[in-house]
Amino acid sequence: MALTRADAAARDAADPLAAFRERFVFTDEQRIYLDGNSLGRLPVATRERLHALADDWGDRLVSGWPDWIDAPTRVGDLLAEAVLGAQPGEVIVGDSTTVNLYKLCSAALDLGPGPVVTNRDNFPTDRYVLEGLAAQRGVELRLVDDIESALDDAAVAVISHVDYRSGEIADMRRLNARGARVVWDLCHSAGAIPIGLRDAGVELAVGCTYKYLNGGPGAPAFLYVADELQPRLRSPIWGWFGQRDQFAMERDYDPVEGIGRFLAGTPPVLDLAAVEEGVKLTAAAGVDRLREKSLALCELIIELHDAWLAPLGFELGSPRDGARRGSHVSVRHPEAWPICRALIERADVIPDFRGPDSIRLGVAPLYTRFVDVYDAIDRLRGLVERGEQRLVDPERARVT
Amino acid sequence: MALTRADAAARDAADPLAAFRERFVFTDEQRIYLDGNSLGRLPVATRERLHALADDWGDRLVSGWPDWIDAPTRVGDLLAEAVLGAQPGEVIVGDSTTVNLYKLCSAALDLGPGPVVTNRDNFPTDRYVLEGLAAQRGVELRLVDDIESALDDAAVAVISHVDYRSGEIADMRRLNARGARVVWDLCHSAGAIPIGLRDAGVELAVGCTYKYLNGGPGAPAFLYVADELQPRLRSPIWGWFGQRDQFAMERDYDPVEGIGRFLAGTPPVLDLAAVEEGVKLTAAAGVDRLREKSLALCELIIELHDAWLAPLGFELGSPRDGARRGSHVSVRHPEAWPICRALIERADVIPDFRGPDSIRLGVAPLYTRFVDVYDAIDRLRGLVERGEQRLVDPERARVT
Repeated sequence: MALTRADAAARDAADPLAAFRERFVFTDEQRIYLDGNSLGRLPVATRERLHALADDWGDRLVSGWPDWIDAPTRVGDLLAEAVLGAQPGEVIVGDSTTVNLYKLCSAALDLGPGPVVTNRDNFPTDRYVLEGLAAQRGVELRLVDDIESALDDAAVAVISHVDYRSGEIADMRRLNARGARVVWDLCHSAGAIPIGLRDAGVELAVGCTYKYLNGGPGAPAFLYVADELQPRLRSPIWGWFGQRDQFAMERDYDPVEGIGRFLAGTPPVLDLAAVEEGVKLTAAAGVDRLREKSLALCELIIELHDAWLAPLGFELGSPRDGARRGSHVSVRHPEAWPICRALIERADVIPDFRGPDSIRLGVAPLYTRFVDVYDAIDRLRGLVERGEQRLVDPERARVT
Repeated sequence: MALTRADAAARDAADPLAAFRERFVFTDEQRIYLDGNSLGRLPVATRERLHALADDWGDRLVSGWPDWIDAPTRVGDLLAEAVLGAQPGEVIVGDSTTVNLYKLCSAALDLGPGPVVTNRDNFPTDRYVLEGLAAQRGVELRLVDDIESALDDAAVAVISHVDYRSGEIADMRRLNARGARVVWDLCHSAGAIPIGLRDAGVELAVGCTYKYLNGGPGAPAFLYVADELQPRLRSPIWGWFGQRDQFAMERDYDPVEGIGRFLAGTPPVLDLAAVEEGVKLTAAAGVDRLREKSLALCELIIELHDAWLAPLGFELGSPRDGARRGSHVSVRHPEAWPICRALIERADVIPDFRGPDSIRLGVAPLYTRFVDVYDAIDRLRGLVERGEQRLVDPERARVT
């Protein structure tokens, strides 16, 4: 292991995206944040935008609506083109990932009822939405270890594009070609890796904006429906924002053409402004360049893992092959939970823990530096060498 | 008509709530805003809170979640006690009114399927949600003129506590005693009139926070389920925020006890902070005192209507009896639409229009003054006397 901190610093000096770090708020330069895959940082522009938008509300009141009302589709169009490899008119932003998953899975079941399937270890809300729909519709829920072979005789599947625990990338094109209609969960890929939804033949997808897209805590999620499929689909939640000629009040429900039919209630204007600023930064950097840097950062984690952590009982919990890995690297250890707490409390490094034994080290190439990775793994190595994880109160509540 | 502007000013001078006006942002003292029933004003504290919360996100990042995660129930508890006449543990804030209506109507249908009913002229999203559920569940949708007599042989009804057009108050206690399980829509009553949900035997209710509660454009809505009913109800949208022991990932869905089972996805933290500040102001003023002032303001509108507007062809579109009226007064006129535009464009008075022929004059007793009402009706009288509504371009887009 010849890599030194100076080598890492040299990579930062040569990083074409280095200047983006200045576009985020940093209040503590000692702390190393490797959890942008859970909650992204605050962009400087977002703070300003929120101030301006509050003032806009205060000043213009209801007359601001003509400028606000298009935010779900405006931000959706930006996401579509800059981040998702989709077309304008295929994406809206609003509601939570969970609610959007519900809308699309329900709509997909309308097109062809039958068993619903997902990975047994998929993110909980993905499983719960399907479990609830299966109960509601009287169809079978299948939780499987091998999703690919389960697709042929299922009606609807939910698959995470990047696995929240291992970071493994699923092959969208291949899995779309099987029998089931797949609703893709892009929470851990949007903004982190190039996503060619149209190229991969994706019909339906949702994803969150508070991770790599830096939209803020609990920011609204997005929803994608391929243009060709839109006329055949209806949201289960019929609401006034999905209605044709919305302000002509005395009509039966008649959904608008296009993606807007998946809107339901009044859009959250403040939050959408925050999402827009976050997406703009990703768009400005470019997903391809972000991916290139993310790969290099993750490779550095793996190099340092092999050199420093493996001898301490760690195992890699993510694919070694960068082409199969998203923007975080999980390292596994029997004492992962107390190690994770010790990292936060004693070493000022913020990763996150995912049970039973994974520490996720997420890199957000808009603001994570090579020296951050170097220092974080160095601190991790030191504290495990010193056994500091045994000094942590095991009862501490965990919320991440 | 002996009332003068000096009389109105004297009432303001004697108003015990007058000081609350200073707790809102005013950027234009000439403009008279009578549309707080559509979008409430920006509280000064909300602007500060949004700044602080953005900074909290920027500084604490994911470690802020332990303080943020309870916001839906914390703000819900405040609403329950200060505004809704409910108990802590019966209300959450999150998602839109439309999504919350969907959750509760769907859950109510699970308890006993059958026809669903609402007023033919209820607010569109209330009708659409029921229309969609009727299609999904294969039950009959009944749109009726007389809701009371339609309740006995329906399974689920949606009724607006205060009618969005006329401002008429429905008798919750009486209507709850009929056959149907009623989901109450409190959008136009929450924060404006005392609502004793428990006293009136209400089981289910939703409402918005961006009108009289001043939560901001598109702020998340609330959802109420009476304590006794909670164990028997499940949200149709099973999500990870409704799950018992949320961060133990490898479980089947097992909803938490209590109102939290109606949570779905990650809560919108920024928006919830704004809602909390708005609700705090209403709580500080007290709903009973707000109601008293609202009644006096609306009576002034009616007095002035009778004296000045009725001779110009206006008719009252709201109940005369204050006990049967919420916090807005609708005045009807065949030229309501161009008059409404002229008021905004030429007289700097902001009401809103609701088809076919109503101008809603909403009073928000936290910040509307008696002189505002006096001046607004005076300007309205003047412009109609001068026929200025005929100078308005009839093609102007309307969004309110």
